[in-house]
Amino acid sequence: MATPTILGFTHLLLDQHVKQGDSVIDMTAGNGHDTLKLASLVGDSGNVHAFDIQKNALDATKHRLAESGYSAQLIHDSHHELLTHFTPEALGTITAAVFNLGYLPGGDKTVITRSDSTRMALQLLTTYAKQALIIIVAYPGHEGGKEEKENVMDFCASLPSEHWRSMHYGHVNQEKAPNVFTIFPR
Amino acid sequence: MATPTILGFTHLLLDQHVKQGDSVIDMTAGNGHDTLKLASLVGDSGNVHAFDIQKNALDATKHRLAESGYSAQLIHDSHHELLTHFTPEALGTITAAVFNLGYLPGGDKTVITRSDSTRMALQLLTTYAKQALIIIVAYPGHEGGKEEKENVMDFCASLPSEHWRSMHYGHVNQEKAPNVFTIFPR
Repeated sequence: MATPTILGFTHLLLDQHVKQGDSVIDMTAGNGHDTLKLASLVGDSGNVHAFDIQKNALDATKHRLAESGYSAQLIHDSHHELLTHFTPEALGTITAAVFNLGYLPGGDKTVITRSDSTRMALQLLTTYAKQALIIIVAYPGHEGGKEEKENVMDFCASLPSEHWRSMHYGHVNQEKAPNVFTIFPR
Repeated sequence: MATPTILGFTHLLLDQHVKQGDSVIDMTAGNGHDTLKLASLVGDSGNVHAFDIQKNALDATKHRLAESGYSAQLIHDSHHELLTHFTPEALGTITAAVFNLGYLPGGDKTVITRSDSTRMALQLLTTYAKQALIIIVAYPGHEGGKEEKENVMDFCASLPSEHWRSMHYGHVNQEKAPNVFTIFPR
């Protein structure tokens, strides 16, 4: 493999950026893969919050963490309700926030992340979480996924480049393959 | 730096992929930065060929290599003349080919890489250099640069995804910043 996979690339970024003791957020717990990755990076001295609108996603995440001896604060709510669960000061200490968009693998495919909710969450993060590396993995392959990807890309493109560095990593010859967008303050 | 720079990303890929003893090509020697990087990776047992249409670029490259105790086969010709300098068999052993498009930094800004020449070189590489990681850095900021970037992207998008994995890494909120495209056989 001469070039990293989408998952490999996001893990590479998290490995380089997230340190023991950090506070981080998994914006879409899903089956808990990213939550586990984040928990392993911040260690016992750090803390991970993980959002999901689906109870079965949080159950799967809890189970996955427990198997590996980790824990996280699981939040059964949409990630656009960020300010219900964090003070602006607490958001200011967050070093990473990860979104894995689309539907829950193995779950109800009609329950998908919504562009307006994702956009609101991104707006809140870029307003308050001024130290956070924001990573968004978007899947244009499912129904509504292309629009969701474009919505994220539009949000990233709208960020003033004096203040924000926003990058894209993705496939050029596979329209339906996942894409990664990153946002980081300069 | 939470996300790699364009240069950092290309070096990361080369570090992972190019081994001591490899045969590689710098398709645009320029001031020799990539040639030097490649020469350091392949070592004394490997070999680097470097193309440039400008004599002063090759002189700068030769000087840069000599300063660090490295050498390369410098070819004063356009990279689309690949088959004048390599047999198809020799191209079949190449493990990396790197393009850094645009004009020579510090040189004559009216002498730029040309889309048709780049495209022909890419066609030859994807036909004969079946083991090569191809890396193209495109600069949409100068005159003709946007078209050149789009031309490379179109070429990458046209490669059948069953046979080729082509990726993009670049800025979302800086239209004129450089972009990296990679091509690798599956």
